[in-house]
Amino acid sequence: MRPSGRNVDEMRSVSIETDVTKHAEGSCLIKMGDTHVLCTASLEERVPPWLRNAGQGWVTAEYGMLPRSTSSRMRREATAGKQGGRTVEIQRLIGRSLRAGVDRQALGERQITVDCDVIQADGGTRCASITGGWVALRLAVNKLMKAGDIVSDPLLDPVSAVSCGIYAGQPVLDLDYPEDSEAGVDGNFVMTGTGRLIEVQMSAEGSTFSRAQMDELMGLAEKGVAELVAAQRAACA
Amino acid sequence: MRPSGRNVDEMRSVSIETDVTKHAEGSCLIKMGDTHVLCTASLEERVPPWLRNAGQGWVTAEYGMLPRSTSSRMRREATAGKQGGRTVEIQRLIGRSLRAGVDRQALGERQITVDCDVIQADGGTRCASITGGWVALRLAVNKLMKAGDIVSDPLLDPVSAVSCGIYAGQPVLDLDYPEDSEAGVDGNFVMTGTGRLIEVQMSAEGSTFSRAQMDELMGLAEKGVAELVAAQRAACA
Amino acid sequence: MRPSGRNVDEMRSVSIETDVTKHAEGSCLIKMGDTHVLCTASLEERVPPWLRNAGQGWVTAEYGMLPRSTSSRMRREATAGKQGGRTVEIQRLIGRSLRAGVDRQALGERQITVDCDVIQADGGTRCASITGGWVALRLAVNKLMKAGDIVSDPLLDPVSAVSCGIYAGQPVLDLDYPEDSEAGVDGNFVMTGTGRLIEVQMSAEGSTFSRAQMDELMGLAEKGVAELVAAQRAACA
Amino acid sequence: MRPSGRNVDEMRSVSIETDVTKHAEGSCLIKMGDTHVLCTASLEERVPPWLRNAGQGWVTAEYGMLPRSTSSRMRREATAGKQGGRTVEIQRLIGRSLRAGVDRQALGERQITVDCDVIQADGGTRCASITGGWVALRLAVNKLMKAGDIVSDPLLDPVSAVSCGIYAGQPVLDLDYPEDSEAGVDGNFVMTGTGRLIEVQMSAEGSTFSRAQMDELMGLAEKGVAELVAAQRAACA
Amino acid sequence: MRPSGRNVDEMRSVSIETDVTKHAEGSCLIKMGDTHVLCTASLEERVPPWLRNAGQGWVTAEYGMLPRSTSSRMRREATAGKQGGRTVEIQRLIGRSLRAGVDRQALGERQITVDCDVIQADGGTRCASITGGWVALRLAVNKLMKAGDIVSDPLLDPVSAVSCGIYAGQPVLDLDYPEDSEAGVDGNFVMTGTGRLIEVQMSAEGSTFSRAQMDELMGLAEKGVAELVAAQRAACA
Amino acid sequence: MRPSGRNVDEMRSVSIETDVTKHAEGSCLIKMGDTHVLCTASLEERVPPWLRNAGQGWVTAEYGMLPRSTSSRMRREATAGKQGGRTVEIQRLIGRSLRAGVDRQALGERQITVDCDVIQADGGTRCASITGGWVALRLAVNKLMKAGDIVSDPLLDPVSAVSCGIYAGQPVLDLDYPEDSEAGVDGNFVMTGTGRLIEVQMSAEGSTFSRAQMDELMGLAEKGVAELVAAQRAACA
Repeated sequence: MRPSGRNVDEMRSVSIETDVTKHAEGSCLIKMGDTHVLCTASLEERVPPWLRNAGQGWVTAEYGMLPRSTSSRMRREATAGKQGGRTVEIQRLIGRSLRAGVDRQALGERQITVDCDVIQADGGTRCASITGGWVALRLAVNKLMKAGDIVSDPLLDPVSAVSCGIYAGQPVLDLDYPEDSEAGVDGNFVMTGTGRLIEVQMSAEGSTFSRAQMDELMGLAEKGVAELVAAQRAACA
Repeated sequence: MRPSGRNVDEMRSVSIETDVTKHAEGSCLIKMGDTHVLCTASLEERVPPWLRNAGQGWVTAEYGMLPRSTSSRMRREATAGKQGGRTVEIQRLIGRSLRAGVDRQALGERQITVDCDVIQADGGTRCASITGGWVALRLAVNKLMKAGDIVSDPLLDPVSAVSCGIYAGQPVLDLDYPEDSEAGVDGNFVMTGTGRLIEVQMSAEGSTFSRAQMDELMGLAEKGVAELVAAQRAACA
Repeated sequence: MRPSGRNVDEMRSVSIETDVTKHAEGSCLIKMGDTHVLCTASLEERVPPWLRNAGQGWVTAEYGMLPRSTSSRMRREATAGKQGGRTVEIQRLIGRSLRAGVDRQALGERQITVDCDVIQADGGTRCASITGGWVALRLAVNKLMKAGDIVSDPLLDPVSAVSCGIYAGQPVLDLDYPEDSEAGVDGNFVMTGTGRLIEVQMSAEGSTFSRAQMDELMGLAEKGVAELVAAQRAACA
Repeated sequence: MRPSGRNVDEMRSVSIETDVTKHAEGSCLIKMGDTHVLCTASLEERVPPWLRNAGQGWVTAEYGMLPRSTSSRMRREATAGKQGGRTVEIQRLIGRSLRAGVDRQALGERQITVDCDVIQADGGTRCASITGGWVALRLAVNKLMKAGDIVSDPLLDPVSAVSCGIYAGQPVLDLDYPEDSEAGVDGNFVMTGTGRLIEVQMSAEGSTFSRAQMDELMGLAEKGVAELVAAQRAACA
Repeated sequence: MRPSGRNVDEMRSVSIETDVTKHAEGSCLIKMGDTHVLCTASLEERVPPWLRNAGQGWVTAEYGMLPRSTSSRMRREATAGKQGGRTVEIQRLIGRSLRAGVDRQALGERQITVDCDVIQADGGTRCASITGGWVALRLAVNKLMKAGDIVSDPLLDPVSAVSCGIYAGQPVLDLDYPEDSEAGVDGNFVMTGTGRLIEVQMSAEGSTFSRAQMDELMGLAEKGVAELVAAQRAACA
Repeated sequence: MRPSGRNVDEMRSVSIETDVTKHAEGSCLIKMGDTHVLCTASLEERVPPWLRNAGQGWVTAEYGMLPRSTSSRMRREATAGKQGGRTVEIQRLIGRSLRAGVDRQALGERQITVDCDVIQADGGTRCASITGGWVALRLAVNKLMKAGDIVSDPLLDPVSAVSCGIYAGQPVLDLDYPEDSEAGVDGNFVMTGTGRLIEVQMSAEGSTFSRAQMDELMGLAEKGVAELVAAQRAACA
């Protein structure tokens, strides 16, 4: 039934390659099928002005797509003069999601910026960004702990995200682009390694869904996140 | 337990005054307690370029806050040179939500822009905008039908929205600002008059929530939306 | 002769409702016929950088129109990315006019920002903004004086404004939109309660006027301002 | 009494050098004392979109100051990313003023853009721009008439402008910068060669003025404009 | 003498991996030592407006750096609201350089946009972009020729670029970042496979150079470009 | 062979008029044939933030063209909302070139901004800006030395620039606009009074050139710069 031939509860193959760039404190290239996102974590020993002297750190995120990461070339946001609404929404989501898994007191007065740049897109880039972004963050924090700059680990539980949607009337897990562009209902679930919810965003355009379907989607998401968390743990080991 | 003394499943008082401005094809002033939003629906006999000659209409929304709608004065977005990320997110949500309740074929090749401008804010402005925005849309469509420009009603089912969240560990309905600023988890449910889901956005910052809590929040939202739909129907009668 | 049937020296009915929003230090909704402007005065206990430690306060103004305050929907300035030339001109005029009636030494080192947002437009919005803006300012200052933060009243004399123009060859007072859009000559007079001039702006497009006509317009303006000042006094009493 | 030693009704020396640039259809360098403005008129055989096929022409103006035209260097508006409020106000005034002296039917469907660039500033740049701008416009129109592209002269009457103000309590004509920066009341009068008014802009900041003073200022302006019109006629002869 | 231990006329190791992204018509990842640039060529069957119906094609380029491609994180240009001066200079150079090697008549009325995105930077990113950009362009043109859309090859001769500079008083080839940041004189030579010059940009900051040194730099460049052209040919074979 | 009838190694007539504006610390109007550029040097007793307390000065440049300096009117960059790529490239070149001739230690902690505004353009405006810009800088520094604010002259050697190109197959010196718009290869040489090179920029569009031609162009440039340096010296004497 699915264009890719996958089962309704089957994820695309996931790979997470770490330490892919020499400058960043933490980095990985995450591949969810044909969706490839480069995630880097950059450390700065300062916090935003409104957090100064609060004894807490900050984690923020930015998101971008290379102009030809997509099927037809997109205009570069730097030439358009601003980030589009979709970009802003996505990077706010990534930042919120990652922060939900951080003990900001334990991080101390420093900021980590996670950049998620889509090299190749085939659906689910924001979820891949969160999952890969957490790995980059984990590696940067490891470096701080190894150097003794942090004593208590501020990352309690992995943060992962997966998309779900209703495709051809059927709830399915981890939509690729052909599914995403047809689905009347789709969204994202951000969860922790222990199955707690961080963010739920389900959205219908030109359609609606029932509470029972919502429940089914949540079940699929739990399965998907469990697999992603295993991949994150393996990559950081 | 709630600052306002309301029960956990108790809405603020709702009022919807219609036809509040002489120029707009449809308009209302919605008040959810101390949150007041002016909603206008503006009709244009043309569609966006990418929809031309498709035999379908379009509904879109814009959102704004007056500088002193809030407790301390906010900078005017027009002087800042752009709409902020929050504004963009909200107006995309309003537009998607309203479109989910529109038969765009039946609307015909015309566009209706729903402007939601917050006169006074006390939490829940985006939900009030959706609920009031639908009333303005309904009134503008009524005018088209009365004039015979539309024969089959494109608005099948009301669209309403309510916020829910976890305040002091307890799921509560329709957060006001004092609750909203303290809640570790909060979000919005957009639903139809028949109880179908259009959009679910639950989000935790510095916290997480369980699937059981999600279920409880959904139950509260169903109660709240039912009351709002009744208020919409009364206002348009 | 006038579309509204008014006499050449007859104002539209004026109403000024005060304390219309719970957050602002001072506020009113002024209605000049079908022109409705919401004016709020916001107090900040700091002055612009170039005034620091000068022992003086500052009063400034911003102006906006809701997108559907007009007959056909206008583009929101926040989406256009900047305030248009007309908006900038108007808010500079409002600010200058209000400052002319303020003893800035007596105000002390604080800033009051007067926001004038047009809810519904039917000509004369800048004049209504000045007249209503002064009322909002008066109420905010009253609050400061009541609290003992200011001892000597910095508002010596009310500031009011009225438009005049030559419509169908005849000088008339307080133009509404149908007159304004036809008038070859029109402008605004800002005056004090004691009849002193603050600002005179008469402008012809595709036409000219004589010194005698200028004199006649000034006479009409004096009559109009006297009525407005009475309304301001009644509203603040 | 005046810093320059001039009488209250004495203009600075005026010179208008024509045809100062080889590309423009009309050009002049106007000097009002130490205020020097380069004015060019550029002809295009098309009109703005909203005027197409209306059988009328258009005249518009732009204004700029070289960064070091002033006593201390100003930021270049092109690097600031936009024209400031003052610039926008001034160029709208120049455009309106020049159009008031143009028979747009006689001009035919073409546009003339008058650029006024301040080479050196010493007060009164907007008035010098109007006066010099009219000369550039006159020369460009002469060229069109000589070529037979226009048969009936669209420029009926010269347009000139002069500033007036109250300096040290005394109405004075043609303020230079030392006067302008001290005057509590100042403004501009735009008039035609036959003494008709086009625009009156008097403005007080931190002061007010009486109707009698307004009258005196208007008398000074009439004297000044008469002298400027003579200079314009001599330059174009 | 050189930080890397290379000889003065020794290039860094070069690798060019082709077809690295599934969407672009042509693509490669070029590595000049630790400088890694992803180059994609995107085909559109239309030309810029000013070239329509001229029977010619167009080649243009855009350049970007990922925020953490550099040693310390750079601000994303999309959030800064515009491309910086350096970016604009570089992408104009890439576009001009590639066009110099294209027979635009033979290309036909189509546009190819070459995007060069720096994944990791260690000096010489603009030269790597030109060299890799030509490979992406070559592969996209190959696809057009294979499909029969182009009959005569529009790419006559490879285009390559290399940096040279005076480091510690000594002309050296292919500067890496430690050299580049210290060199008083540096620049770029863009040349064809047959040794013709396309662009020469030598620039001193806080220093000068002699005509004899210029000659020596040109000799080094010729050697470097010959090696790069061999690598381009091998990659495209 | 040349449209102007000049020999291949013949410059246009050069004139440099100094002290042309009363406000700037140094100024000149340079004319290279019909190319006229107004250059001003503005002194500020502060340096950019990144240079504070480094005991060094800074020289920077900005460049602009009046809208009708060109054959057809150009859009004003201030209305376009930003400086174009060409402008940014040129002003960076002017700044780098002038700094190469400045001993920044000797200048002391102050900044000089050189503004180059093109009054009339006929090719070679960036070279005229450098040559005239140096004169303005020289005059401003003279004033500082005369006042005793600087003891050791920071301007060691004049900086001049000339354009060269291949027109109709023939290397020629100092291209005017008719040549520049036809030349397949053209560029600029910035040199010192003693013949040292500061910047070489040769660029081909739709063409290439040989090393021998490069050599010939360099010879022409040396001749041209020698003449310009003589003109600079005469102007400053």
